[in-house]
Amino acid sequence: MADISRLSVNQVTVLPHWTLAQFIAGAVRHRVPAISIWREKLHELGLAEAARQISGSGLAVSGLCFTGLISSPDDAEAARALDDVRRAIDEAAALNAQSLIFLSGAVDARDKNLARTRARVLDRLATLIPDARGAKVKLALEPLHPTACATRSVLTTVKLANDWCDALHAEDVFGIAIDAYTTWWDPEIEKEIARAGKRICAFHVSDWLADTQDPRLDRGMMGDGVIDLPAMRRWVEAAGYKGPIEVEIFSERNWWKRDADEVIRVVMDRFQSAV
Amino acid sequence: MADISRLSVNQVTVLPHWTLAQFIAGAVRHRVPAISIWREKLHELGLAEAARQISGSGLAVSGLCFTGLISSPDDAEAARALDDVRRAIDEAAALNAQSLIFLSGAVDARDKNLARTRARVLDRLATLIPDARGAKVKLALEPLHPTACATRSVLTTVKLANDWCDALHAEDVFGIAIDAYTTWWDPEIEKEIARAGKRICAFHVSDWLADTQDPRLDRGMMGDGVIDLPAMRRWVEAAGYKGPIEVEIFSERNWWKRDADEVIRVVMDRFQSAV
Repeated sequence: MADISRLSVNQVTVLPHWTLAQFIAGAVRHRVPAISIWREKLHELGLAEAARQISGSGLAVSGLCFTGLISSPDDAEAARALDDVRRAIDEAAALNAQSLIFLSGAVDARDKNLARTRARVLDRLATLIPDARGAKVKLALEPLHPTACATRSVLTTVKLANDWCDALHAEDVFGIAIDAYTTWWDPEIEKEIARAGKRICAFHVSDWLADTQDPRLDRGMMGDGVIDLPAMRRWVEAAGYKGPIEVEIFSERNWWKRDADEVIRVVMDRFQSAV
Repeated sequence: MADISRLSVNQVTVLPHWTLAQFIAGAVRHRVPAISIWREKLHELGLAEAARQISGSGLAVSGLCFTGLISSPDDAEAARALDDVRRAIDEAAALNAQSLIFLSGAVDARDKNLARTRARVLDRLATLIPDARGAKVKLALEPLHPTACATRSVLTTVKLANDWCDALHAEDVFGIAIDAYTTWWDPEIEKEIARAGKRICAFHVSDWLADTQDPRLDRGMMGDGVIDLPAMRRWVEAAGYKGPIEVEIFSERNWWKRDADEVIRVVMDRFQSAV
């Protein structure tokens, strides 16, 4: 099972409960070694103050969530999204985040052609290489669940993320975030994790509830669902990834309604018994 | 756009409205050339009476929905599921259905190992070959959306369906049902449809709503969502499939609340303008 020294808690797990300042203090209080930060909370606190509090806390920052959404068929919309990615790169650099989570953006009714939408994302990703390289920030391409294809991500498989990395030829800039929840169903997942190898720069865990009410906001605590998380952890480790394992639970129906300190305690327990 | 002579209406589209007898009469009244039948409605009417009404109606039966769910880690449960498949094969033969929709069954908490679960399904499918061959019934392996992996189907991609067909070596018995709604997000879909070729024995259409409330029961009418249905139809036709195109809409929020005759009229209109 997973060693607690590798735990990172993604802020979304206690998103409704705590400000970023409270989250930092809570993580320190519970001796959580690393956190991943949600940008809306970062903007509330302010980048300089957040960087100051984190550097004094001893916490590692495994990730900054998220930026991207650059798939629009409208060039002006895409330009605004690319500006946001550049701002997020600067934030990730200031926070010394190990990676910046990148979501491709969706297909939409104005252009239902998925191949063309994916080609646009790839072309625009290439334009970000100088910015990310200059800031020494790793862009973590995160495949989302296929249910997000019309809302946040045409990047629906780890295979496609590997294909994009092959095409981009910038292994120092682009990595891949493996989220167990969004990829566990994929018949190719073990093979594509092995292929990703050193590209893997983040590993997210939560569980798929057999009676899930919503594929986005009803994620389960590790051990409460059907994902073989220890197997996925072993595949990711065999591929060479030894970094933080991030617990990322969107849970409108359950965990978001509980006391935040209780949530953190259960996360720490399940991390060691079910991952 | 699609020619109305290729329309088949899946009974689920008007499931809450009509019995099977009403559905048969409604299809004849609207001059729908083919239907696909839901087994719970068939059992209410009785197989012999259903076969009698259909043979007198002039309607073709494009499919019988559904059987399968043979993935259990418990052998006694699996044996009962296989018995149900054999009953469904007899029903499909009596109705002269062009295919019998087969759903693999899910992974469950008793055995979270997906590779092992898939191997069980494949082994058990092989045992059905004599039954299906004897009855001259085509088993249509239908990949469901990845959201169904813990409820109805570990068969989550057309690639895996092709891999299973390769392994089964019984092309007269096994076909593949392509459902646009469950497969449109797949980066490999165009390639795997081409690979499926003559295996394609059913093609189902509906639309993915950008604001979908539920990936199973909130399907959209063709044209109301983001799927490029004409492109998918062309891929399926290029692979060699010229049979019925089945409209299959589960819609708790919208179409299931409307008048059934209105639903059929809209289906016929959209079939010709958005498929």
